[in-house]
Amino acid sequence: MTRLLRGIAPALAFLLFAPAVRADDPLPVETRAAVAALARKGSAQTRAVEWVRRLTDEVGPRLAGSPGDRAAVAWGQALLRELGLANVRAEEVPVKAWERGVETAEVVAPFRQRLVVAALGGSVPTPEGGVAAPIARMESLEALEEAVKADPDAVRGKIVFFGRRTVKDPAGPGYGKNVPMRSSGPAKAAPHGALAVIVRSVGTSTSRFAHTGSTNYEVGGPRIPAAAVSNTDADLLERLLAKGPVTVRLVLGCRPLPDTTSANVIGEVPGRERPDEVVVVSGHLDSWDLGTGAVDDGAGVAIAVEAARLVAELPRRPRRTIRVVLFANEESGLAGGKSYAERHVAELPKHAGAFEADSGTGAPQGFSWNAADTLEPALAAVAKLLEPLGAGALRKGGAGGADISPMLPSGVPLFGLRQDSATYFDVHHTADDTFDKIEPASLDRAAAAVAAMAYAVADLPEIHGRPAEAPAAKPR
Amino acid sequence: MTRLLRGIAPALAFLLFAPAVRADDPLPVETRAAVAALARKGSAQTRAVEWVRRLTDEVGPRLAGSPGDRAAVAWGQALLRELGLANVRAEEVPVKAWERGVETAEVVAPFRQRLVVAALGGSVPTPEGGVAAPIARMESLEALEEAVKADPDAVRGKIVFFGRRTVKDPAGPGYGKNVPMRSSGPAKAAPHGALAVIVRSVGTSTSRFAHTGSTNYEVGGPRIPAAAVSNTDADLLERLLAKGPVTVRLVLGCRPLPDTTSANVIGEVPGRERPDEVVVVSGHLDSWDLGTGAVDDGAGVAIAVEAARLVAELPRRPRRTIRVVLFANEESGLAGGKSYAERHVAELPKHAGAFEADSGTGAPQGFSWNAADTLEPALAAVAKLLEPLGAGALRKGGAGGADISPMLPSGVPLFGLRQDSATYFDVHHTADDTFDKIEPASLDRAAAAVAAMAYAVADLPEIHGRPAEAPAAKPR
Repeated sequence: MTRLLRGIAPALAFLLFAPAVRADDPLPVETRAAVAALARKGSAQTRAVEWVRRLTDEVGPRLAGSPGDRAAVAWGQALLRELGLANVRAEEVPVKAWERGVETAEVVAPFRQRLVVAALGGSVPTPEGGVAAPIARMESLEALEEAVKADPDAVRGKIVFFGRRTVKDPAGPGYGKNVPMRSSGPAKAAPHGALAVIVRSVGTSTSRFAHTGSTNYEVGGPRIPAAAVSNTDADLLERLLAKGPVTVRLVLGCRPLPDTTSANVIGEVPGRERPDEVVVVSGHLDSWDLGTGAVDDGAGVAIAVEAARLVAELPRRPRRTIRVVLFANEESGLAGGKSYAERHVAELPKHAGAFEADSGTGAPQGFSWNAADTLEPALAAVAKLLEPLGAGALRKGGAGGADISPMLPSGVPLFGLRQDSATYFDVHHTADDTFDKIEPASLDRAAAAVAAMAYAVADLPEIHGRPAEAPAAKPR
Repeated sequence: MTRLLRGIAPALAFLLFAPAVRADDPLPVETRAAVAALARKGSAQTRAVEWVRRLTDEVGPRLAGSPGDRAAVAWGQALLRELGLANVRAEEVPVKAWERGVETAEVVAPFRQRLVVAALGGSVPTPEGGVAAPIARMESLEALEEAVKADPDAVRGKIVFFGRRTVKDPAGPGYGKNVPMRSSGPAKAAPHGALAVIVRSVGTSTSRFAHTGSTNYEVGGPRIPAAAVSNTDADLLERLLAKGPVTVRLVLGCRPLPDTTSANVIGEVPGRERPDEVVVVSGHLDSWDLGTGAVDDGAGVAIAVEAARLVAELPRRPRRTIRVVLFANEESGLAGGKSYAERHVAELPKHAGAFEADSGTGAPQGFSWNAADTLEPALAAVAKLLEPLGAGALRKGGAGGADISPMLPSGVPLFGLRQDSATYFDVHHTADDTFDKIEPASLDRAAAAVAAMAYAVADLPEIHGRPAEAPAAKPR
């Protein structure tokens, strides 16, 4: 008797909590009930903060291919097993490895001043003793191009300093607009005889931290050392440059390491009807090495894991499988995301959706989505239920997130968790990206929002994919 | 004719701007006019920001006895000469020297985690290879005392971690209450067999900076290495300690250097009637080595220099001499302040006042003052004129500032510029104490307020000193 009651209690609970059924509801009644239950979790304390705390405390920095990265892969599998997920595994991913070394810079003329710098990921080292050369300031890549058109020797024998500031004002140059100075500035400056590149941190911190990030050389092209300088010290350089020539010595001991492997960590909540069809919930497990990768992307890892755990806790699992994917190597090559799309190419038509959370710890606002228009009514119905969490806004378009973007050509419906990112670029890629920056209540709401939306997509009768646009293999 | 007009124009201006004379005004009419003119300067742009920019850009860090300190002494004299001050000189001060070296720390068990640390000023180095030992956390010096009373071996063979947090809440432990953990924690822990001390930064930064500061060993007592750890990493230690034992490796390459000399930099605006009587306006020229000493105490240097310049610009100089003193070595021994009081002991009865600005870049609020009660009416009258600057509050008592405190027993009237210090302990003693943190408008108001109050004290008919309390020589 008691056992019987226990067996039917969840069904009773559903009936009690389920809103009145409307004939034109795009959500089946049980789907709506489960989504509503998940949305309510966002008002309470979830375990999301616990996952990011454990990842950052027990593993810490996890640069792709480093010992920390290997520890994170073991940690991720252990956690998913601890939570009772099925098919927990690590899918190997080839990654390029690199390590930071000594990194110092100082103005040597007209005055001596230390500068806070961080080597860009992938940078070659400076020669023994460093590079000491006059600074040639360029506002942007375009300004460099114009300068060398006007004078082919404009940067020869010099350290190019890309100075454009990253601002929070939506009207000004934000992160996206300035990243090319970091990612391709060294490759663009090297052929013109520049000896090194220093880029103003592509970040909005007003504290004296340098924002690292990856840089890419041209294959077979010249490779010159490259570092980011803190906004504070970039300001100093500009004040000194306003008065005359400035010479800087840059010493970088970083170096590319032999290719190695990392892994995407995977675990599943099997679907109740069509376990071979999947909805991916994801973040990326790797981080930069300066901080402990709390907001980038420990928060996303925690949101994805907690979303799956919240779903698994429900009495009624969704029709399809929820697959947690903790991607390898987002930061310096997107190897995890590319590898997943390639390895699972045959399975992508059975992907009803892929979600990524990689925007830090800010309050959830809603989702970007990219799927067939036929999905819209159901999404709108879920979004309505997410409004109490502040996460009810939908925006059509986009690739959902860097790691899932390689699935875009295959037509998999892609979903990006949109979050308040006002402070995200203050700490990301710096030594200050640490657990104390996490906003617990926002993380709870974000985890519940992803759980609810992923549940709905996994539970709808049909997959609402877009037509495939190109072969899914090697999408980028 | 033109020359004649030019000659009387200032006097005319005074008459035009002077408020109506009241029979009971504690300020002579010309004094009031000059004070009012100076107070008005605070609403406009002064040159104070220029002085702190030049000091931090052209000299940068200036740890007592370091090459930067010597550069600062030269810089200060050059600036005071450039501004036309009289009797510009450097008065030699013996200082203890010390230099920072490599400084790293990491948790080695139960997990590996880097910690951001900064050696405390004066610390001895760790042995080659560092000190690796279990952490014994103590909330405070009092807690240490109790712990070793209960168990004499409580900290033997361990690294003592003083964990109490410095908070902005006036009800909680602020800077003053926590400084003893830093200044005497290592001396207190060493006799009980502790191997090293790590103190939670005595500062309110939530960013990952360690706040340095001086520590003092007992003469002839054991000396163990000591460092501050960032609040971020102190939080990490506490989370790990909550779960079990934690082992940390600390590596410090810092070292005390042979005694050397620095100097108090002095320049004067000679008094028009009694040039042998003086009012000191001061800040300290030395700084910690991690940042560029902008808020601590580049701001105070700028305020003092600009206050003197504003006074010198007036058509009518005050009765007494305004003496700028840029003190040496406030941070690690107060050698400059002690040396001034000793060297000028015979002259102290002719000091009508001494002002110090050493509270950063926040908005001026008023002055603490410590003088004969007979001074109060005049101060209140000046304070009234400073109200538009927000600097009209007077508080009786105190020693005015660390550097001028050695003059306290001699009865010299002491004045401390009080400022909004809400953000002061976020950056002071860290690498983040840099020029970009300066608030220009607050600095303008502060410089004008000091100029106005110092002018009044220098212009009153009498000196309002307190009775000498003890021999002025060797006051501390």
